[in-house]
Amino acid sequence: MLNLQSDTSERWLEMVDKHLDEILIDHAHCEKKAAGCAMNLMFQYVELQPLCRELSEIVNEELEHFGQVLDLLQRRGIPFRRLKPSRYGRALNDLVRKFEPDRAVDRLLVAGIIEARSCERFDLLRRHVQDEELSEFYGGLFESEARHYSTYVRMAKMFRPEAAVKQRLEELMQLEAEILRETDPLPRMHS
Amino acid sequence: MLNLQSDTSERWLEMVDKHLDEILIDHAHCEKKAAGCAMNLMFQYVELQPLCRELSEIVNEELEHFGQVLDLLQRRGIPFRRLKPSRYGRALNDLVRKFEPDRAVDRLLVAGIIEARSCERFDLLRRHVQDEELSEFYGGLFESEARHYSTYVRMAKMFRPEAAVKQRLEELMQLEAEILRETDPLPRMHS
Repeated sequence: MLNLQSDTSERWLEMVDKHLDEILIDHAHCEKKAAGCAMNLMFQYVELQPLCRELSEIVNEELEHFGQVLDLLQRRGIPFRRLKPSRYGRALNDLVRKFEPDRAVDRLLVAGIIEARSCERFDLLRRHVQDEELSEFYGGLFESEARHYSTYVRMAKMFRPEAAVKQRLEELMQLEAEILRETDPLPRMHS
Repeated sequence: MLNLQSDTSERWLEMVDKHLDEILIDHAHCEKKAAGCAMNLMFQYVELQPLCRELSEIVNEELEHFGQVLDLLQRRGIPFRRLKPSRYGRALNDLVRKFEPDRAVDRLLVAGIIEARSCERFDLLRRHVQDEELSEFYGGLFESEARHYSTYVRMAKMFRPEAAVKQRLEELMQLEAEILRETDPLPRMHS
């Protein structure tokens, strides 16, 4: 359903076990960045009302999740702080083509791919972590990440025909799997 | 209550009567920009959780208003489109001091002042326009703009003592009144 071209490695789950606090802090940053990304897309393509409305929904949901992760950190006494981001987001954004409408297609697909990967990892986490509160939390987020992924792919089709979007999605999914294969030493949601 | 240092001129209301469609389109842009501004502040001061939570609420509300103005445009058959912004926002942002924590104080106060001015104008509009739907719409927005104004001033006090914030607010309010005195030829929410 998610079209991901690789499964998350055991190595990542081991990193989660060793650095759970840092992963949780990074998760809060990811939700905030997801909201910011949807907002930037709204500003860029503001003439397209249907797009703006979908993106506006996504901003709201991501900010709600951001608040939920902040709550979780607070309950656990983990201070929220800045973190050096993993290479993942930057590497994916470097794949975005320069000229419209390809640029729009790629920005939307990259945003969707990040949601798909989060979705896969939330599913892993909910089954992996022993902590019941966390497991439930990730179970709750799982569904909305999957929905955002579909929404982003659907929005990309506002700019290019379905077949072209599908082909580009496959290419980007391959490249995303390659990016994750290169080890990132930081314990992050997308390392 | 709003501490504004000038009342909106009759000239502005005349412009509203002559260019209502353009004012409505600009209003949609203003709501979107208000959401974007709150989001930018979240990114800048992300370590401050109480600030982030307040800003996140504001983003949600501004996006809700953005959607409401888009609905209004759609019902009236007015196509949403890009508009050259008035000089107002740029002129106010030019007043922001460069170094922290003054920079934070000024950014928050400028955001608050824009809310205060919107609030004053929505109140004028709800009493001025003959159109019942519009009048009710502006009546509904009036209250949240006033609340956002207070929230921004309160947030500024997270960075500097109350007296310093109050003094700077007075200075900026004076400058805002001066900015509005210089005629802006464009029919805009803040011209």
